[in-house]
Amino acid sequence: MGEPIAFRCLTCGREYAPWTVDHVCPRCGAVAGALDVLYDYRALRRRLDPRAFAAGRRFSLWRYEPLLPLAAEYGVPLRAGWTPLYACPTLAAELGLGSLWVKDDTANPTASCKDRGTAVTIAAARMLGRGALVCASTGNAATSTAGFCAAAGIPCSIFVPQAAPRAKLAQLLAFGATVFPVEGTYDEAYGLAVQAADRFRWYNRSDGQNPMVVEGNKTGALEVGEELHCDLPDFALVAAGDGAVVAGIAKGFQELVKVGLAERAPRVYGVQAAGAAAIAHAFARYREGKPVLPAAEGAETIADSIRVGNPQDALRAVLAVAETDGGFVTVTDEEIVAAGQELARRTGVFAEPSGAAPYAGLLRLLREGTIPPGSRVVLFVTGSGLKDPEGALRGVEMPRAIPPTLAAVAKVVEG
Amino acid sequence: MGEPIAFRCLTCGREYAPWTVDHVCPRCGAVAGALDVLYDYRALRRRLDPRAFAAGRRFSLWRYEPLLPLAAEYGVPLRAGWTPLYACPTLAAELGLGSLWVKDDTANPTASCKDRGTAVTIAAARMLGRGALVCASTGNAATSTAGFCAAAGIPCSIFVPQAAPRAKLAQLLAFGATVFPVEGTYDEAYGLAVQAADRFRWYNRSDGQNPMVVEGNKTGALEVGEELHCDLPDFALVAAGDGAVVAGIAKGFQELVKVGLAERAPRVYGVQAAGAAAIAHAFARYREGKPVLPAAEGAETIADSIRVGNPQDALRAVLAVAETDGGFVTVTDEEIVAAGQELARRTGVFAEPSGAAPYAGLLRLLREGTIPPGSRVVLFVTGSGLKDPEGALRGVEMPRAIPPTLAAVAKVVEG
Ligand SMILES: [Zn+2]
Ligand SMILES: [Zn+2]
Repeated sequence: MGEPIAFRCLTCGREYAPWTVDHVCPRCGAVAGALDVLYDYRALRRRLDPRAFAAGRRFSLWRYEPLLPLAAEYGVPLRAGWTPLYACPTLAAELGLGSLWVKDDTANPTASCKDRGTAVTIAAARMLGRGALVCASTGNAATSTAGFCAAAGIPCSIFVPQAAPRAKLAQLLAFGATVFPVEGTYDEAYGLAVQAADRFRWYNRSDGQNPMVVEGNKTGALEVGEELHCDLPDFALVAAGDGAVVAGIAKGFQELVKVGLAERAPRVYGVQAAGAAAIAHAFARYREGKPVLPAAEGAETIADSIRVGNPQDALRAVLAVAETDGGFVTVTDEEIVAAGQELARRTGVFAEPSGAAPYAGLLRLLREGTIPPGSRVVLFVTGSGLKDPEGALRGVEMPRAIPPTLAAVAKVVEG
Repeated sequence: MGEPIAFRCLTCGREYAPWTVDHVCPRCGAVAGALDVLYDYRALRRRLDPRAFAAGRRFSLWRYEPLLPLAAEYGVPLRAGWTPLYACPTLAAELGLGSLWVKDDTANPTASCKDRGTAVTIAAARMLGRGALVCASTGNAATSTAGFCAAAGIPCSIFVPQAAPRAKLAQLLAFGATVFPVEGTYDEAYGLAVQAADRFRWYNRSDGQNPMVVEGNKTGALEVGEELHCDLPDFALVAAGDGAVVAGIAKGFQELVKVGLAERAPRVYGVQAAGAAAIAHAFARYREGKPVLPAAEGAETIADSIRVGNPQDALRAVLAVAETDGGFVTVTDEEIVAAGQELARRTGVFAEPSGAAPYAGLLRLLREGTIPPGSRVVLFVTGSGLKDPEGALRGVEMPRAIPPTLAAVAKVVEG
């Protein structure tokens, strides 16, 4: 494993011995989730063989144990990570791109990328001997926590906004989690989970509360790197809600550079809904040298997974994206719906609205000229369309039922 | 690849040169789906190295190219197969089993095992130069066909019963398929697709219409075999609707024996809903030496994927299961719902009702003594719970929403 050398507070910069800070930064009061796990990249550079990942013969994110802060033996059996990367040469050519890849993280055990952060966080809970978990989320991280806790035999409590899609609630309840649908927004559910974690001493897997989440999230980038033999794309696009996923993707690519496996990280772009763009706004302030936080604002979008008004990992996302010379882009709900249809029709990957947002972001960045023709681009599809079928149905007309006669078929086929 | 030596009609036994029979058996009129693909297992026995599968470095069902009838180059990029196998030692011990594994085929690209049959069928369509596909299904095979056709850029027409779950329809429509919701049962939709395939010369991926479907389905068993180093379980349980999946699983295990990689195939049990048990009844007739067909009867179950009254691959399923000294078991809807909850809570795998049916079947076969204590058992989970969230919600009570206060949480936690 990667043997972290320190946990550093992103807010005040103070470094702590690994695992000694659990809850809040003793110096500045920032929550533990704002800690970044530091490794000795120079030592890894000397030590890490590019074939090390494959050599372990683990077909999950634990193949990246050399860059993870704890041993694979603490992992839950569910296979997080090792999801497919699809090349889309025809679509790339049509868009004037050199290459286009779709990283299909819907193939994770609970059908979203959140399983990555969950896998590493639950492994940490097991290593630390913590007996119960809590998670607040718009739905996917909650479901992921519930599924992995079920597999591990650990109880968990889940806080979701009452308005979470029914499919996500069904999944949560099936896993036997104690579910608290909260009358209010995601941000209210989140605050309540933090209080409850304090009160009941639950280990908190919520984005922005636990540095392990980003350590898991970064493995999506490591997989893309390994699959492309570390000849990394020019641009990587991923949806941003709390910011923990985009921060993880940026960190993963940077690590491949820091350990000497890749030459240059892709410019990472976080994609937000125009109506829930707190991190994009924070990033703009950062560029102007203004304080990144506070970032709380309204949140309205059909993409429920990124319907976040008070992003909990905004600072980390801003810093990580800036380090890659990337940025943020916002897209409208109309663009998101159209992107979902186009992505499914052209690639066979069925995404929930937030999962399709990067495709909408790509089209926008191409129009704006930010992504020049001939670029090599990877899109991260972070959640399955099955998570929110009603969201997917917005873009399409339900065909009329026909009687079971060939004449009725012929009428449709022959117009 | 496996170089098939013949396509044999299951109904009359006549053998044809591979690929020369496409539609119906010229001798007896049985449809082409009732053809079995034969290989020279003796030659494969001499030639096939157990490490051959891994050596190809393909992380999909195409790693079994040595046992498939066509070359991997015709495959669509979507990653069918190579799904996880989870060992469940705690649950096994509680049930008095020696080992229990869950083969999680929900991790396929469109979240069901049907992607296996689709992957091989579409590859055949590409090899044969067929320009359009058709599929009738209760939902999963249809969605799978639509997704793979989208990825391949091939048009397809889909026939589903009007009552298919909305999530499945959403997925179908997202992929841009021409969807025909048929006023009537699955069996009526199926008959209509057959007529339309004739009329419009569409390549038919429906179960029982194309021998390639079973060739794909068998790879689920090959994966279990490879992962267990060919020390195969004693029993394998899988849901049966049309019979094409259970037939494929049985064939796959048998092939591992025929090529000399395994000593003995598991006894394969097809699991049917008590209200849709046409193959189970046909199997009972077969055991008594009576004719297997006709098998059409009523079909009532909450498990829509196996709500089949006129199973199209009944003969194949009966013969293949009998060859493993297996059988069929029926379970009630109540047992299926309870099994879905139990499976999710104990393993972290969220199944649609039909996907959970094998767990219900296991409990029944244990009670009956058919599966003795200490047995090693694998359950195939064939479809994701996200395919039918309302089905999953039948088993659980939706918790009341709470106001965002710690007092409300404490009331639930502390009782
Ligand atoms: Zn601090
Ligand atoms: Zn025949």
